[in-house]
Parts: sequence; structure tokens; C-alpha cells
Amino acid sequence: MRVVDIIEKKRMGQVLSETEIKYVIDGYVKGDIPDYQISALLMAIFFQGMSNEEAAHLTKAMLYSGDIIDLSKIEGIKVDKHSTGGVGDKTTLVLGPLVASMGGKLAKLSGRGLGHTGGTLDKMESIPGMRIDLSEEEFINQVNKINIAVAGQTKRLVPADKLLYALRDVTATVPSIPLIASSIMSKKLASGADVICLDVKIGDGAFMKTIDEAKELSNIMVAIGSAFGKKVSAFITSMDEPLGKAVGNRLEVKEAIETLAGEGPEDLEELCVQIAGYMVYQAKLIDSLDQAILKARENLHNGLALKKFYEFITAQGGKIDDLEKFVTVKEIVPFLAKKSGYIKTIKALNIGLASMKLGGGRETKEDYIDPMVGLVLNKKVGDYVEKGETLLYIYANNPITQEILTMLAEGYEIIEQKVEKQPIIHEVIV
Amino acid sequence: MRVVDIIEKKRMGQVLSETEIKYVIDGYVKGDIPDYQISALLMAIFFQGMSNEEAAHLTKAMLYSGDIIDLSKIEGIKVDKHSTGGVGDKTTLVLGPLVASMGGKLAKLSGRGLGHTGGTLDKMESIPGMRIDLSEEEFINQVNKINIAVAGQTKRLVPADKLLYALRDVTATVPSIPLIASSIMSKKLASGADVICLDVKIGDGAFMKTIDEAKELSNIMVAIGSAFGKKVSAFITSMDEPLGKAVGNRLEVKEAIETLAGEGPEDLEELCVQIAGYMVYQAKLIDSLDQAILKARENLHNGLALKKFYEFITAQGGKIDDLEKFVTVKEIVPFLAKKSGYIKTIKALNIGLASMKLGGGRETKEDYIDPMVGLVLNKKVGDYVEKGETLLYIYANNPITQEILTMLAEGYEIIEQKVEKQPIIHEVIV
Repeated sequence: MRVVDIIEKKRMGQVLSETEIKYVIDGYVKGDIPDYQISALLMAIFFQGMSNEEAAHLTKAMLYSGDIIDLSKIEGIKVDKHSTGGVGDKTTLVLGPLVASMGGKLAKLSGRGLGHTGGTLDKMESIPGMRIDLSEEEFINQVNKINIAVAGQTKRLVPADKLLYALRDVTATVPSIPLIASSIMSKKLASGADVICLDVKIGDGAFMKTIDEAKELSNIMVAIGSAFGKKVSAFITSMDEPLGKAVGNRLEVKEAIETLAGEGPEDLEELCVQIAGYMVYQAKLIDSLDQAILKARENLHNGLALKKFYEFITAQGGKIDDLEKFVTVKEIVPFLAKKSGYIKTIKALNIGLASMKLGGGRETKEDYIDPMVGLVLNKKVGDYVEKGETLLYIYANNPITQEILTMLAEGYEIIEQKVEKQPIIHEVIV
Repeated sequence: MRVVDIIEKKRMGQVLSETEIKYVIDGYVKGDIPDYQISALLMAIFFQGMSNEEAAHLTKAMLYSGDIIDLSKIEGIKVDKHSTGGVGDKTTLVLGPLVASMGGKLAKLSGRGLGHTGGTLDKMESIPGMRIDLSEEEFINQVNKINIAVAGQTKRLVPADKLLYALRDVTATVPSIPLIASSIMSKKLASGADVICLDVKIGDGAFMKTIDEAKELSNIMVAIGSAFGKKVSAFITSMDEPLGKAVGNRLEVKEAIETLAGEGPEDLEELCVQIAGYMVYQAKLIDSLDQAILKARENLHNGLALKKFYEFITAQGGKIDDLEKFVTVKEIVPFLAKKSGYIKTIKALNIGLASMKLGGGRETKEDYIDPMVGLVLNKKVGDYVEKGETLLYIYANNPITQEILTMLAEGYEIIEQKVEKQPIIHEVIV
């Protein structure tokens, strides 16, 4: 078998066999196949796509390139979730304890944020004392004991994905739907869960720009999951504005806690309740989907989910003494509306980048994150605002640059006509 | 400027600027840009193509990556030709002396053969004593003195092309028309001629399979030439069967000599006469194209072209004592027709590969070539053949393998219906 023939086959739009895909991935991970052949193949895949079967073969080859977490020592059906990444996306911090409070076993490995999107690990680490470097034993024991553990991915989890992603990043081959699907699914499958909920975000601040792309990605990921005998559901959700109101690490933890106490923003609560409902229903913990969703909403308002959250952070060493003093910055500056009207757009990308520029996110992998800074929306899309009223609050520890103010100003579109609020969930694909 | 942005731009089908193309090529030749980014860009170019302007910018960037031959010390208008490569293609050996006999200044740098196609240098080296390693001074003096010199390319001629071609070869990005055009034209332009004739072969044994592809390649090469103020003509010619009758190094030299003596195969003579006519007409040595073609045919039959051939090989140290003894092999085996009928096809690819397998060509760059072996067609497409009659003669120094015989048998299609002979030249693009 010659790599050049495999590249040519894909370049001509033909379907690669399982053997060919395995040969390429194994050879690449071993260092036998050079980067330059893989990058040509990735670009050919960008243009010619992959069938669901090919994507499943690719996922399998990537999956077996490293460790696979053995969750068999955890009793019951293990659930996991993944978001394609967005701005203000603190879903895991709400959903995890919520599902755990309903008897779901959430054993989750998370990643860090880069660019305008945040990562769950960064949010967790903003809680004083919170550990993310659990050993496999600690991880499994904790899930058995309190139903939830969230830790950082080990280096040996899907090394093929790390290699491929680094190469895609510098060869303009990131936005290929089968490659995105295989990357996500290989990591989810390596993490060992039985039920997987995917949150596929669309909109300005997301990887997927249109509902058609999101559907394509969702369908291929559900198909890959089925090929491995897993129950996968994909939620296509809106990232046309930030999720909830808070953006920035501690600000988001605080909003997650408020949501777990039944006092969170409507869109965030709705999303968490719906996904949690599907998860426990698919895990057969509750017989009917409607009942499961009802129960999820109940647990956000009866204190059970919140109680589970504190159990969870305590188990991993985290401690929040006083929520009122949890976020302390040098200044909180209101950002005012320049005209009156209905908010049509709050560009998630601009908000995410502004938060990053404040120091709340990473431009490069080496950057230090200030856990305190960020933005809190005072108004959401569809709200009416008077000229001079506060659109959002800027939490800053450094002087606010003109660049940030311009970025924020350009993030808003305010019009005279009434604007309909859009539902957070567009579609669920199972 | 970031390479990843340039790759993305091309991936999205946008036109790259001269600055961007120069940045990529310069950086690659210097070693600042890694192979894996270039191979991704090449694959993006394969799918998205390049405008004529982009191809001219690419050619320019490649051209200036190395030495440019200064032919200003040669008096008169310098002519050059290039063939995209075929089976039995000894055109340069006929055309060179023919054009030189008409006053054209042919200062040509040639390459070697690989796979099923032969190279002019290999044919020249099959002549005892013939040198191809002329110094620049020898090369220029020889053209000034006898109008013709053919030498090997120096290592410093278009190094960007060598790097890019080696990368394309292992990343399945060879068959991209703008990349082929830039590769050919950068070398031709670096060789310094004023008038360039391109022989673009189409058919089974050629790079270009269809007339549409050949036209596209021809148009883009003529456009690149114009951008550099050169007179370029492209002949789209047939490679549906081998050119002439002889395939193999000395066999082809012998056929070239016969053609220069007015006794060559019709297709080869026709091709050389037409191209020579265009060359001397474009070089303004003769005022009318028809007159130029007439004169070219005349010189093949009055001994002037043949005389020039011997001057040429003598100048470079070559000597042929006795043409009858020039090709000596252990055995000459006739390959017989298995049925009667008209020859519809003689697959150039099969003939070329069979000659290579006999030892007459290279499978890899390191292979030794046996100059004596090869094949001589006894019948051409359109000829009638009786069952048991000789289709071709195999010139062998080793036992003829079953693989070679099967290759030859599969190369022929013989049918009952009369077959029209096709013209060798399909179209001329200027």
C-alpha cells in the first residue's frame, strides 16, 4: 500500500477502505508517514468529503491510536456531553451536577479554551483549590460515589487527534465536517461513555455557520456513534448571541451556580434542562422523555442540582467561601447603548474576543488567563433598550482599550422594529 | 503574511496576489516554509485551479529561484522546444538539426526519461562519446558556431521546480494544469530562448488524456509566455500510438537519422516539419509560414539537416562509425498478430512500459539503461495485418518475460472494419 495512491484515490472522490484509513493513521502516529502527505490527504478530504462509513473508520483508527478509558468499574450507564464550543458556554457546569442529581453517571474529560471560546477546564480552575488532574482511580471512585467527575484529558487520549488537529490548524483544513466529526467522536468514544449528547452550536460565534452544516455534522456524528453501538443525540443550538449573560471564567461559574439555584438566564436553563432530560431518558433512568425533562427542571428549582454542584467541587478540592466576593475586579464599567431600539444582534464572536482581550481568554496556548475579568450582558437579543442604558458590564483589571470598545460597539445591532426572540434549540437529531 | 491564510484563500477559490505567491515560493526554497503547508496549498490549487495571471506569477517566482541562462552572447533569435513527453518521441534529435540547418539558433537544455517515457539526454548518451555536460561557455560558443547545442540542465536551474515536483510526486498533486504549465514554462524561460514551441501530447501514453485538457494547458502556457514577452506556440499532437516506429534509445537515434535523411516514418517527419516551420517563421528567418514549412521539408530531403546532425554530435564528442552496427542485441524477436484485421490501437503506454521492462528505460531514477534494447513497430494504426504477420520486433539482451509479452498483447486492438489514420497534429495554439 502506498500513501500517494490513497491520496490520489481520495482526490478523485473515491471511498477509502477501512484498511487504507487505518494504514494512514497508524503510519502517521508512528512517524512513518510524513506530515506533507497527511496534509495533502486532509485537503483532498476537505474537497471530496467522506462517507459516514469512512468517517467511522477514521474515528476508529484515531480512537485506537491511544488509551481508551475503561469505565466498566463504574456501575450504571455512563453519560457524557460535548459542545462544539461557544461564547458564554458554561453548560457542563450546570448540566453535569443536574444530570448527576438525577442518577446519571457523568464521567467527563474536558479541554481548554482557545481564541474567542472558553473551555470547561479553565472555568473549573478559576475555583480556588479545584483539581483537574485526577488519577484514573480517583476519577472512577468519584463517579461511583457522587455520580460526577470532570478531569483534564490525559496526553495518551487519542494522540492521533492531537497530531492531526495541529496539522489541520496550520494547513487551513480545520473546517471539514467529516474531520471535525471524527475528531470529536474519537475523543468521546475514547472516554468510554454509553450515552453521548452533542451540543452543536451554530451562528456567528460558532464553528458551524449554518443549520445545514450543523445538520450534516450532527448526522455524521450520530452515525459514527451508532457504528460503535452508542446512543448519541445531537442538539443544534443557537450561538447567535452568547449563551446566558456572563462571559469570563469566574463570572461564568457564578452564573452556573445561579442557574443551578433556579435563578439563571432563560436560555441557559432551557438548554440544560432539555439536554439533561434526553441524557437521563437515553440512559433509561426515566421511562418517558417528557417526565425526564420535567424532573430536570424540578431539580434546578428544588436545590438538588445545586447541592450536587457543591459536592462535585468539594470532591475535587474546590471551595467557594462567599459567592458575592467570588468575582473581584478593579473596575466594573457599564457599556452604554448609543441609540434606542430593539437588540437584533449581539455578535458572540465580538463578545468572546473582547473578553479574551480583557485577559479572560487565550490568544495562544501559552497565555495566562485572568479568572476575574469578562463581560456580563444586561440585555439579550429581543430586549428593548433606551439610548444611554447599559448593554453590558465590563469587568476589568486593566485599562479598557479602544480596540475592545470598538469590538463591543460593532457587536451590537439595534433596530426600531420589534425583534422576536429565537428558541435556543433548533433541532434534536437522534 | 501567514502561509495558512494564503492556503485558506486558495482553498476558498480566491485569486492569490503576486506578493503572496512570491512569499510562498521564496519561503519554500529558503526552507522557511515547511513541506506540509506547501502540499496542502498544492492540493488546494489542484481543486481550485489558478488564473493565467496567477500561473504567470508562480512561473516568475519559480524562475527567479535559481540561475537564468544568459543567451545574449548568441547572435540572432534563439529558439527552443519542449515536449510534454511521449513514447518514441525523438523529435528533438530531428527537429534540432533541421531548425539549425535553416538558420535557427537552438540552445536547448534537456532532461532524462522516467517510467514509460524516454528523455532526450538518454538518447544522446547512447551515442558513443557524446557529451551532455557542456559548460555555459562551450554551450554558447557551439550555438554561435553551428546553430545547435543540447545539454543537461544544471542543478541551479529553477530549484523551486525540483522541490515542488518532488513534493507533487508523493502527494498526488502532479496532474494540475496550472502547476504543470508553471513547471514547464519556468524551465523554458530560465533557458533564455525568444521563441518557444511546445509539443503537448494527448492520448493514452501522455500526461494529458483529452484534447480539452491539452487546450487548457496550451492556452495557459501561451499566456504565461506572452506575460514574459516571448513568442510561444503550442502543438497539440497525438500520442495514441508511439511516435514513429522505434522505441528504445539507440533505435530512436537510428530512426532520427533516417528521418533526417528523408526516409523516416510519415508521422515523425510531418511533426518535425510543421514545428520547424513555425519555429523559423516565428524567429522571422522566413517571412511566410508556408514557405518555412516547405523549406523544412526540403532540408530533410536534400541532406542539409542530416549534415547538421553529424556536425552537432561531432561538436559534442559523439561518433557513429557504422549505422548498420549501431544497434546490436542478442536477439530480435518478431511479435506476431493473433488475428487478421485493421489495427485500431497501439497503446503507447504499453509499448513504453514494455521497452522499459526490456531494460530500455528507468523504473526509478537510479536504474541503468541498456541503450540497445527496445521495440520497432512493423505496423502502425490504420494498417491492415494478417494473422501471424509481425506487429513489431523486440530487441532484447535478456530473456523476454511473459509480463512483457502480455503487456504487448494487451497494447493492440485489431478490428475487422477499416480504421482511418488520424493526423499527428490536432491543433496549433499561438
